Amino acid sequence: MKLCYSALSPFARKVRVTAIEHGLMDQLEKVDPDTSDMFKGFNRANPLGKIPSLELDNGDLIYDSIVICEYLDSIGKGPKLFPPAGPERWRVLTLHTMADGMMDNTLQRRVNSLLPEGEGSPSWMERLRFGIENCLDEMERQADGYGEALNIGTITVACALGYHDFRLGYEQWRNGRPALTRWYEKMLKHTSISETLPG
Amino acid sequence: MKLCYSALSPFARKVRVTAIEHGLMDQLEKVDPDTSDMFKGFNRANPLGKIPSLELDNGDLIYDSIVICEYLDSIGKGPKLFPPAGPERWRVLTLHTMADGMMDNTLQRRVNSLLPEGEGSPSWMERLRFGIENCLDEMERQADGYGEALNIGTITVACALGYHDFRLGYEQWRNGRPALTRWYEKMLKHTSISETLPG
Repeated sequence: MKLCYSALSPFARKVRVTAIEHGLMDQLEKVDPDTSDMFKGFNRANPLGKIPSLELDNGDLIYDSIVICEYLDSIGKGPKLFPPAGPERWRVLTLHTMADGMMDNTLQRRVNSLLPEGEGSPSWMERLRFGIENCLDEMERQADGYGEALNIGTITVACALGYHDFRLGYEQWRNGRPALTRWYEKMLKHTSISETLPG
Repeated sequence: MKLCYSALSPFARKVRVTAIEHGLMDQLEKVDPDTSDMFKGFNRANPLGKIPSLELDNGDLIYDSIVICEYLDSIGKGPKLFPPAGPERWRVLTLHTMADGMMDNTLQRRVNSLLPEGEGSPSWMERLRFGIENCLDEMERQADGYGEALNIGTITVACALGYHDFRLGYEQWRNGRPALTRWYEKMLKHTSISETLPG
């Protein structure tokens, strides 16, 4: 299988954590993103230009990251990271949505900082920052209930926090959020999490 | 159940189509979005401020749209719109990703047009437009294989095309795309699709 990704992408990191947990990393051949024109996207295999995407040995393409993760979870031999249909599945997938959206807001702020001189939107950046703070506050309220086990929800929260540290470290999300800080420290004991930190 | 949505949201439209196909619309109480401050988002129930979100009778919250659709599909009595794990599931979910991303690009162009004077990014808008055109070209190549049945992939393609007509009609996606045009006409024969058109 060929996985197109960059080591800095938090979305690809979810996939790598999933692959490590299932012992599938040695089956994934890395394809580098195409960085020749960031305004055309990084990946010709996905019409949206986004990474990651997975090409199976039969040529089938799978994207985006959550679909790749579910695919790998379906073929992997490790403990399942996606619960079967039922309240636990909806809870975990909703947590994934929140954390994935926080990563997307963080990425959009990064992209905004790379725009040509004179472009960009302070109003929209403030909207994105507000959303990130809301997510962090909600995570602080929920953190004591997350547990220490990996699932696609907790993996994505860890990836969102790691990406926030990497891109927006000066905003110091740990301030005033002791429960989330404690929980994140425990997550870093999973080698799949600690070995895939960006930077 | 309480569904927070606007009639114009293409993401909420996927949920409404799913609910109609499963005969669940009369169990969904409509909650209007909070439009008091678009820069804080439209929905306090979701930390990201996005619609739609679903509140179950026991108080559980489910978002975003794809998770709500899968939940409704799991409790509905109609034909399943999400295939079980296997190649067909990954194909349908990857198609969903492409169409959902095209809707998101279209929405971002809409948001850009609403920004305060002097804000916004022509470079980024061009990137979004390029992605939309790529998706439409890929859909044209694929359309003869989509079939006429509804699944979460074909529903989302139809919603993406309807939203493109609504927001970017002047770009005339049908030009040079006869297979996709023919396929979309057939999709409009599903009352769940034709009755939920925006505008």
